[in-house]
Amino acid sequence: MQKKGIKSGALSSNWRVAVTLVMSWLAGVGGGVQAQTTEQDAFMVRALYDQVLLESRAYDWLTYLTKKIGPRLSGSAQASAAVEYTRQMLDSIGLDSVWLQECVVPRWIRGERPERAVAFGHPRFGTVEMRTEALGFSSATPAGGLEAEVMEVQSLDELDERASEARGKIVFFNRPMDAREVNVFRAYGGAVDQRGSGPAKASEYGAVGALVRSMTTEIDEVPHSGATNFPEGVQPIPSLAISTRDAEQLKRMLEHGVTRVWIEADCQLMEPVVSHNVIAEIRGSEYPDEIILVGGHLDSWDLGEGAHDDGAGCVQSMAVLHSFKQMGYRPKRTLRCVLFMNEENGLSGGKTYALRAAEEGLKHIAAIESDAGGFTPRGFGCSAREDIFTEKFKKLKSYWDLLEPYDLFLRPGGGGADISPLRSQGVLLIGLSPDSQRYFDFHHTDRDRLEAVHPRELKMGAAAMTALVYLLDTHGL
Amino acid sequence: MQKKGIKSGALSSNWRVAVTLVMSWLAGVGGGVQAQTTEQDAFMVRALYDQVLLESRAYDWLTYLTKKIGPRLSGSAQASAAVEYTRQMLDSIGLDSVWLQECVVPRWIRGERPERAVAFGHPRFGTVEMRTEALGFSSATPAGGLEAEVMEVQSLDELDERASEARGKIVFFNRPMDAREVNVFRAYGGAVDQRGSGPAKASEYGAVGALVRSMTTEIDEVPHSGATNFPEGVQPIPSLAISTRDAEQLKRMLEHGVTRVWIEADCQLMEPVVSHNVIAEIRGSEYPDEIILVGGHLDSWDLGEGAHDDGAGCVQSMAVLHSFKQMGYRPKRTLRCVLFMNEENGLSGGKTYALRAAEEGLKHIAAIESDAGGFTPRGFGCSAREDIFTEKFKKLKSYWDLLEPYDLFLRPGGGGADISPLRSQGVLLIGLSPDSQRYFDFHHTDRDRLEAVHPRELKMGAAAMTALVYLLDTHGL
Repeated sequence: MQKKGIKSGALSSNWRVAVTLVMSWLAGVGGGVQAQTTEQDAFMVRALYDQVLLESRAYDWLTYLTKKIGPRLSGSAQASAAVEYTRQMLDSIGLDSVWLQECVVPRWIRGERPERAVAFGHPRFGTVEMRTEALGFSSATPAGGLEAEVMEVQSLDELDERASEARGKIVFFNRPMDAREVNVFRAYGGAVDQRGSGPAKASEYGAVGALVRSMTTEIDEVPHSGATNFPEGVQPIPSLAISTRDAEQLKRMLEHGVTRVWIEADCQLMEPVVSHNVIAEIRGSEYPDEIILVGGHLDSWDLGEGAHDDGAGCVQSMAVLHSFKQMGYRPKRTLRCVLFMNEENGLSGGKTYALRAAEEGLKHIAAIESDAGGFTPRGFGCSAREDIFTEKFKKLKSYWDLLEPYDLFLRPGGGGADISPLRSQGVLLIGLSPDSQRYFDFHHTDRDRLEAVHPRELKMGAAAMTALVYLLDTHGL
Repeated sequence: MQKKGIKSGALSSNWRVAVTLVMSWLAGVGGGVQAQTTEQDAFMVRALYDQVLLESRAYDWLTYLTKKIGPRLSGSAQASAAVEYTRQMLDSIGLDSVWLQECVVPRWIRGERPERAVAFGHPRFGTVEMRTEALGFSSATPAGGLEAEVMEVQSLDELDERASEARGKIVFFNRPMDAREVNVFRAYGGAVDQRGSGPAKASEYGAVGALVRSMTTEIDEVPHSGATNFPEGVQPIPSLAISTRDAEQLKRMLEHGVTRVWIEADCQLMEPVVSHNVIAEIRGSEYPDEIILVGGHLDSWDLGEGAHDDGAGCVQSMAVLHSFKQMGYRPKRTLRCVLFMNEENGLSGGKTYALRAAEEGLKHIAAIESDAGGFTPRGFGCSAREDIFTEKFKKLKSYWDLLEPYDLFLRPGGGGADISPLRSQGVLLIGLSPDSQRYFDFHHTDRDRLEAVHPRELKMGAAAMTALVYLLDTHGL
């Protein structure tokens, strides 16, 4: 198969020398290359790809984060360890500055007794134990668990309509993700309201517990956790995810006369804890006040190892700065890597970062987040405040020809949770969009481990981000 | 993340009814929709995607091919079983005709004693056994193996230059695949001449054996087999692939004074065998003489299970016809699924098919091959005889807007080995181009198993092929 664009073979083993020459040439030309892409840009993008693919430490860092530290739920000892580890790594690669930014995070814990959910009374199967995990912010059951009648619904709307039936029951949210969606994130978007808002609504209608079908298109045995939100004033209730296979089974059992389920959970919401975002930067040589941010989130669910979600995004973001440093590239603008804390259950890191940025009057021209898995990148999606979006998008699109040879699209729509609080400050928010087909095999489960991440795919994402940052730095926005 | 295009949610559970209505409408309009895409096209593409994603049997068929039949090297009992199984499956889905087409294939066997390669004489490591597999068409060593001095080269050119040194030696081809290539098939293309032509050249220069570094960018323990060609008149020599880790180690050992390697192989080239291509078709209602072909190859290397290479392409091609049949879609043109035999070591199936097509005066307007793995499709690449390419490509491109919402590119360059003999007949050759990052973890190894194929990714490829066939059928070429 052929590919247009710059062939990597064109870069001989002397490419470092060549790159140095080109960089000297660029330095001589100074600011005169604005907004018009050049042969040199193409050469640099290719050189950056080579740098990342051959010499990035992204996978090694991810190995440490996942295998030596492990899951990193906000407020946990491992979350602190991840802050310290990444700070040290960033410190060791010779950037201009690396620091921690305080934020206060909730600390929810799963408790000592494992969660359980048991359906019983089926004439043939008898008692069926389901595979389950509590959702984040779930409350505990009384000791010994609780038993109640089950009420199955397909949507929040259905629950609204049947609100009067909910009192004293366990509400079972069972609308599947739509397997027909080509981008599985859209299928997720179409179902996740059940997990995020379902239990709170059930609580408001007097339910004593909630079961939520796991967020995946696959039919398998793996419960998928994730946060569920109980707004101020709403009583948290025990809220458990069950595997899709068990959701299908429970549905059938309900059709055959089973009506009651027993659940047990030992979760607790502790006092909030001080934690940190990790920030590192290379100062710009010409426009140091214009910041280009790359980031991911350090915290992860307490199942698995937080490999795809979002160890991958963290190490990719670190790799961006590292690669520029290794190349000896001096950016015109300030390049910042931000590893956010608490994306999964509170967004405290993202909110704090944006707040401090506003207080300090910082000017971010663009923020790129990688938080959709360490799979092969398909492109980038972006969004911004309406009054500035069209112009920024058009400008970015004007030099996209340089990234098309790398099979990367640019689309309206996208960004990332951590960077979303920067929106009101007029920042272009850009989300790396990797292939989504396998993501929900792992998302918020104990399968989200290093082994699920392919080293080349991870690096391809880092390379794409690095190339984009180079173009943003060179041409501005 | 947002996506342009038709949202699958737009298709309610009553979509079958809707599709039937649209199809009636299309039938009424008749041939008047040529070359101009319509809302109905967009609707049909979406409906076909839904059909394949929800109801395709591709993964079930692949499960049988890999787990019940297993590896399917040309001339083996399993290759025959695969012919019979796929014929039966195609027969069972109610197509207009299903038949076998004879072809004569080579039968090379690995022999009873496993291949071995041992480097010895290292002052520290002593004797090192390497992980190895014979290349297809390798000859056997004498009983007891053979031992010779090793000559490492990086290229065929280097061997030419140092031809006088080769006599009596084992030539070791050790140029790595270039890990900087974004499309790994290009890295493969840049290295595989060593495997395909290296041993024959070594033989011509009097070498007694050949070792070839495995074709992967990873450094691992897995030998990658594949055919090596000994043209008429060139004496086959024992030719073994060694894992990339062993290739790296052998290189270091050679630098430290090791000079000799002992190899053993028990391979044999038997008498040719009669085998078959499997062909199935739905006859066209308006232009039955215009054939649109989809295909893959049934044979596979004798290691692993031939899952990605190319069980995936076979079941995807079968799924294309099955999906049209399930939808009750009556094509204007004749749709043919061809499962070729002997792509891996001879291309007898592809050559025979093209020969018979020429004899029968068949008119293929396009041939689509899936033989690059069952991963998420990135797009299609195409090629044709020079005198017709530009016009055909332009026509195809003119209705590509319908496939862009599914993230599929259309590029010049590409096709497939089995369909390549049709080129001289003026056929547009189209290759499905899946994501390539993981392919060479599995290619021609014992790791090419069902577990390496993701059901959704496999179906996405089948859906893309089905949609493309629909557009080719509706608008011609």
